[in-house]
Amino acid sequence: MTRVAIDLLGGDAGPGVVADALAQFLRQPASPDVDRSSPVSLCVVGPRNLTEELLAERGVDIHGEHAADIAHANDCVPMTSSSQETLALVRERDDLTSTVGIDALRDGRADAFVSIGHTGATVAASVFGLGRLPGMGRPGLAVELPSGRGPLVFVDCGAAPFATEHDLIRFACAGRVYARSLGIAAPRVGLLTIGSERGKGDRLRKNADALLESAFAADYIGPVEGHDLVGDCAADVVVVDGFTGNVALKSMEGALRWSVSTMARAYGNDGPARELLRTSHFLSGGVLLGVPGAVVVGHGASSPIEIIACINRAAALHAGGVVDEVRRSLDAFGQLDARGEPLDAA
Amino acid sequence: MTRVAIDLLGGDAGPGVVADALAQFLRQPASPDVDRSSPVSLCVVGPRNLTEELLAERGVDIHGEHAADIAHANDCVPMTSSSQETLALVRERDDLTSTVGIDALRDGRADAFVSIGHTGATVAASVFGLGRLPGMGRPGLAVELPSGRGPLVFVDCGAAPFATEHDLIRFACAGRVYARSLGIAAPRVGLLTIGSERGKGDRLRKNADALLESAFAADYIGPVEGHDLVGDCAADVVVVDGFTGNVALKSMEGALRWSVSTMARAYGNDGPARELLRTSHFLSGGVLLGVPGAVVVGHGASSPIEIIACINRAAALHAGGVVDEVRRSLDAFGQLDARGEPLDAA
Repeated sequence: MTRVAIDLLGGDAGPGVVADALAQFLRQPASPDVDRSSPVSLCVVGPRNLTEELLAERGVDIHGEHAADIAHANDCVPMTSSSQETLALVRERDDLTSTVGIDALRDGRADAFVSIGHTGATVAASVFGLGRLPGMGRPGLAVELPSGRGPLVFVDCGAAPFATEHDLIRFACAGRVYARSLGIAAPRVGLLTIGSERGKGDRLRKNADALLESAFAADYIGPVEGHDLVGDCAADVVVVDGFTGNVALKSMEGALRWSVSTMARAYGNDGPARELLRTSHFLSGGVLLGVPGAVVVGHGASSPIEIIACINRAAALHAGGVVDEVRRSLDAFGQLDARGEPLDAA
Repeated sequence: MTRVAIDLLGGDAGPGVVADALAQFLRQPASPDVDRSSPVSLCVVGPRNLTEELLAERGVDIHGEHAADIAHANDCVPMTSSSQETLALVRERDDLTSTVGIDALRDGRADAFVSIGHTGATVAASVFGLGRLPGMGRPGLAVELPSGRGPLVFVDCGAAPFATEHDLIRFACAGRVYARSLGIAAPRVGLLTIGSERGKGDRLRKNADALLESAFAADYIGPVEGHDLVGDCAADVVVVDGFTGNVALKSMEGALRWSVSTMARAYGNDGPARELLRTSHFLSGGVLLGVPGAVVVGHGASSPIEIIACINRAAALHAGGVVDEVRRSLDAFGQLDARGEPLDAA
């Protein structure tokens, strides 16, 4: 039984949509979206009364038939908080959904944590509460993108607004472990840059290109461009600094939304528009690699189906032992400081 | 009469597709895609014999009914050239389509230059051959993205792999002039970053945010995210460093291609897939802002219709006096060196 803690608050649409997802999940027999291969128990992180009330409204009795725990939290970091405000809130308050959820993970009361709230708050609470895996500088947010051959792991999608070349090596290392857990036997690594030839791009990309080649040899395929990210890419893991990764992911999201609205204008809301929406679920969230815990960050605008996908992803992350495997895999590299620089450098 | 020089070589599919576009353009009465509001004469830049041969094959006699000039060039910079190879080629050889085309522009034998060849070659030939407008550091490649309210000008899409905050101010200034030429009376400026609050992002974004506010006051709307770029953005001009801009543009392109192939799988190549392709023509190319000449850089995979759109865009750029207007507008700012730093700084 995997115990998944889930943040009730946060998200763009408020707690109602999370409660919808939880109600659907807890009434498993009625839901085709729930993966029942590994059983999951839920711990809802949020105000106790609100949690009970929202679930009761949806016909779910968490003290009876549809058992779930509650970890009480008063509040969440508002979606509009700046980085500085977020850091201060997460440092000062132990009654936020992000800090309560991560504390449950740290203290062994939960096996995984899911939030569709403020990404920076979940990342900060994870790093403050859990620390970083030995060898890791900044953690990276890894999203699965669809490709013809299976999922492509894209990391970092915005856990940090910058990265060093040493961070990119760790992203590749952790991303390969995650890709293996998704069924890719020998994941190949690519570097997101501009131009398809080696040696294009800025200083970060040039330095990273050399380091990636020396670290991964034939498993490093070289540069990957933005238009390769979905559909047909030679790499299984693509690494990038979190600023560029976040812009790339959101740009794809915007273009997909544009496509959906174009289809809706031409053919109505059913048919093509719905088919396109169905295939763009890869935008629903990612996993935080490099912290000693299974943490899934969902998109703030997630639908109930996408929230359930995050819960299943978190459970699989735990059940697959990905964190321990990342820990083992990082052992080959030296330690990094919080700026992503080698600790043993002058 | 606007004289547009166009690079026959380069492009992903070879000169045939450019010849198709030229034949269609020169047989204007048969082509609904040709904008006849301002008359255009063409100067084809490429090997003389090949030009005559390809056009004759398409039933076009450039010495007779469908008059066009030829500016002979032997070769082009190969699409696979690295930045270093490209710089060396453009510096050393005056018989490349990029250098011959830009020379024609500089010497007044053409009013505008269009190429769907190597972007770096066109940018380098422009900067070496024409110089930069006073006040400009790096030129920026500006692409029109579709929004609900009219075109959105996105700059830099990859003329240079980095930018300083001072470059971003110039991109905004030149981008606003270009946006006005597209019919937007009072263009508002946005800064592409991560997160919708002021003060998010890396050091470049933080510095640029303050400078943009002081330069454009109420015309600066603040941060814009990747998912705002197409469809519904509060800004008319969005500025970004060329590395991130290139990744964002190509990521949107990839997502659109993914959408088109999803539609084609579900409904065949006609209908939804074709409708989606029709609305994604904004990926066909951009204009180079900040050099003293009208230069249009087309996508290497442009179709004949998209190449004709580039020719019309180049003619409009010249006819609208955009370059002189950018020159006047840049006068308010100090000069920058080639690294984008103020010349009068210590």
